[in-house]
Amino acid sequence: MKRKVHVQGSRDDIRVPFAEVELSGGNPPVRLYDTSGPLNDPPTGLPPLRAPWIAARSGDHGGERTQLYYARQGIITPEMEFVAIREGVDPSLVRDEIAAGRAILPNNVNHPESEPMVIGSRFLVKVNANIGTSAVSSGVEEEVAKLTWATKWGADTVMDLSTGKHIHATREAIVRNSPVPIGTVPIYQALEKVGGDPLKLTWEAYRDTVIEQAEQGVDYMTVHAGVLLRYVPMTVGRVTGIVSRGGSIMAAWCLARHEENFLYTHFAELCEIFARYDVAFSLGDGLRPGSIADANDEAQLAELRTLGELTKVAWEHDVQVMIEGPGHVPMHKIKENVDLQMEWCHEAPFYTLGPLTTDVAPAYDHITSAIGAAMIAMYGTAMLCYVTPKEHLGLPNRDDVKAGVIAYKIAAHAADLAKGHPGAQAWDDALSKARFEFRWEDQFNLAMDPDTARSYHDETLPASAAKTAHFCSMCGPKFCSMKISQSLSLEMQAKSEEFVASGGQVYLPVVS
Amino acid sequence: MKRKVHVQGSRDDIRVPFAEVELSGGNPPVRLYDTSGPLNDPPTGLPPLRAPWIAARSGDHGGERTQLYYARQGIITPEMEFVAIREGVDPSLVRDEIAAGRAILPNNVNHPESEPMVIGSRFLVKVNANIGTSAVSSGVEEEVAKLTWATKWGADTVMDLSTGKHIHATREAIVRNSPVPIGTVPIYQALEKVGGDPLKLTWEAYRDTVIEQAEQGVDYMTVHAGVLLRYVPMTVGRVTGIVSRGGSIMAAWCLARHEENFLYTHFAELCEIFARYDVAFSLGDGLRPGSIADANDEAQLAELRTLGELTKVAWEHDVQVMIEGPGHVPMHKIKENVDLQMEWCHEAPFYTLGPLTTDVAPAYDHITSAIGAAMIAMYGTAMLCYVTPKEHLGLPNRDDVKAGVIAYKIAAHAADLAKGHPGAQAWDDALSKARFEFRWEDQFNLAMDPDTARSYHDETLPASAAKTAHFCSMCGPKFCSMKISQSLSLEMQAKSEEFVASGGQVYLPVVS
Repeated sequence: MKRKVHVQGSRDDIRVPFAEVELSGGNPPVRLYDTSGPLNDPPTGLPPLRAPWIAARSGDHGGERTQLYYARQGIITPEMEFVAIREGVDPSLVRDEIAAGRAILPNNVNHPESEPMVIGSRFLVKVNANIGTSAVSSGVEEEVAKLTWATKWGADTVMDLSTGKHIHATREAIVRNSPVPIGTVPIYQALEKVGGDPLKLTWEAYRDTVIEQAEQGVDYMTVHAGVLLRYVPMTVGRVTGIVSRGGSIMAAWCLARHEENFLYTHFAELCEIFARYDVAFSLGDGLRPGSIADANDEAQLAELRTLGELTKVAWEHDVQVMIEGPGHVPMHKIKENVDLQMEWCHEAPFYTLGPLTTDVAPAYDHITSAIGAAMIAMYGTAMLCYVTPKEHLGLPNRDDVKAGVIAYKIAAHAADLAKGHPGAQAWDDALSKARFEFRWEDQFNLAMDPDTARSYHDETLPASAAKTAHFCSMCGPKFCSMKISQSLSLEMQAKSEEFVASGGQVYLPVVS
Repeated sequence: MKRKVHVQGSRDDIRVPFAEVELSGGNPPVRLYDTSGPLNDPPTGLPPLRAPWIAARSGDHGGERTQLYYARQGIITPEMEFVAIREGVDPSLVRDEIAAGRAILPNNVNHPESEPMVIGSRFLVKVNANIGTSAVSSGVEEEVAKLTWATKWGADTVMDLSTGKHIHATREAIVRNSPVPIGTVPIYQALEKVGGDPLKLTWEAYRDTVIEQAEQGVDYMTVHAGVLLRYVPMTVGRVTGIVSRGGSIMAAWCLARHEENFLYTHFAELCEIFARYDVAFSLGDGLRPGSIADANDEAQLAELRTLGELTKVAWEHDVQVMIEGPGHVPMHKIKENVDLQMEWCHEAPFYTLGPLTTDVAPAYDHITSAIGAAMIAMYGTAMLCYVTPKEHLGLPNRDDVKAGVIAYKIAAHAADLAKGHPGAQAWDDALSKARFEFRWEDQFNLAMDPDTARSYHDETLPASAAKTAHFCSMCGPKFCSMKISQSLSLEMQAKSEEFVASGGQVYLPVVS
């Protein structure tokens, strides 16, 4: 069975959730990272667990300060302790990584419902799930259900990318019910406010939108401040032009007015707003490649350099920063992307969409991109933005959200293993041991998706007796290698000793 | 629309199939590699297209010779010319790679129905699909249907892993209806013949089974000749012991009788049989790791060295060889696997199962392993054995076969792109161009799975008018980046020229 447990920190109100899987046969339980939150149903708002921590700090100096500020002061906040317990690392590592800008802890002071988490290459690889309405599909209740569904399956953050009507109300419902940090792209709502015409966008309309969203509790915001006027012509020769929504909007604005991007020219003012709420920047890659042909091109790399410049400006304001990345990249160009981002953006956490490693499989882009995501995370990307099977085709529904989250949790965990994250392999070992010992129920309960694993097994062998059988329908009873191997095990140990004692000379040369 | 076309070679009866996708808007058609065969329905046996080539050679010397033999003589056979056209390479490259042992062209002289294909790291990465009955599931018709289904979606070879009753009849139906090479693991049938008891296995029973299968037309056979007695004790400390069915059977035999593996001691005799029919060896990795914990361990690597030794013996008999590989391997250990295989097995083609990059996601192992498969293929693996969502849980059904084949075709194509295979990217470019130009029908027809791509799009926008719309339900009409980007395109070109002429000095410094 899987159940939620809490580990208490240095104070009563630091209670870190884990999913504990109890195992049979005297095997010790396994504790897994848990993003599902308090799970109140129906959704009526989560308890504000961080409120006392925020209030206590606010009293110190009459205003809010960011986690980056405290880390730089050498202070370990309750949030930092929380994530240290969650990650199984020392709290000083969390503080030091945040202080160096290599990790962020997104947590708007107006989103006290969130359970703290950290994004940085020294920590577990995280997964973001995008949800949100579009003008032609979905409603508020449906989006809150997707949020709960996404965090149930392991989404570490959720971005609300709503466009169309009811943006404010949708976001309010999402933030109040979210145990994970919420990200947004404010330009979408700003554009709605000016009637959908990019040319009517102004800094003032944008600024007011950012303040509105920060007041609601949005934890990080994508800002396409690196789409500079002089970079736009670099996209003319591309196969797929500009594929970031925000990027295309800002490019249209710059080009039509022949003015520099107002997000760039007003960036310092934006930093001041972000600092007040501890909103983190997710510096958007508005010129990311949308096809294999456009990967790692001049436009993308020019913008990346600018994002590095903006990172330093944000850090001067104690504002936390991560950097968004592609997109569509063939496997052999993935490492270069990470290396350049690390160098040019001063090791600020990288947050990538996929990347998709081929363009030819619409309807399977959770897979084309899980390949790229696993690799880019192995090379150091801190958070992966999921891609669902509906990418390029339509708005994801509930099933698509689950498929996307699971594909990306697989990519993230594969990268944790490859990076040698302490404790990551214990999960694999526990499941494989259960598999070898035919503890079927333990296998299902340890699986990333117990429901589907159990139902696939039961398709051919539904009887409860099959749950203790030493085979499954794949090979049948006579050809189960694990059964044969297991029965050999005792014999082998005896033979092994005998064999070593005899000098190991049984080897016969090949007859030819 | 997609339709089958044939390209004729130097003689009338060399007709190489392609799937040609016709595009709208004056765009040139795209030709894709096609494995689907003549597609006769109901299955009543395919035409023996290679029969005249085989007969002509047989007349030369009163017996059969292998493709490796001819390649070493400097001869380009019709089969080699066929695959050269199929791959878009020079026939001499095919001949030279086969002659060097770096590629194989599996084609039993008794399977004249097969369309020639090549397996080697200089060619397109191939995908194998496993089908076959087990004692508790499936029948002959169902397996033939899976064969046709697998090749429709792109399987380059199919292995019939049937166990239980009707093995001979199942295989006969599969070989006679297969346009792709068929592989088997003869030990399964040999074991059935001795009543299922590994200890009763004999060289004679095995040899007779191999001859029976070679007579039927099996193109390559997995032989676990590298599981030596002295390696078996190396598996005692493993988390998952021996997970290869054939490996566990041979280990049981060796250990119980305390004799060396008869496949190893009789390997030269086996080569003589294989040479008579031009059956290729797929040297089995009976000690492959079955969990992350066991990857790249002593047992696996000891066996790999022996497979290298056996490769040279097979080559002395002009028999074609490929080498099977793992299994379960974390990402950071994948490259080492390929590098050692290349070195120790003299660059014979590598043929790997996955590898799965984590153990924790049963029901999603087509994804855990597509990640590893794409990477291992990028590093030089020539053929990937698919894994379906049912891996570890049950026998795959029709849907699982499709899910496995598509995940692996994605991995293979991603690797072709990463390796820079000539012509691979043309497919991606054509699809991305169609996407950018809102040619929805062209996108669907170019997709690896047109049916699913179309149905996902139509879930939210079923009207035929949506097939020409400049947006989809994902972002809706106002937020379609491609629409905005496309409308910018002409303007950008004009602005770009103006901008360059003005000296590119529009850049404004950040206001801070």
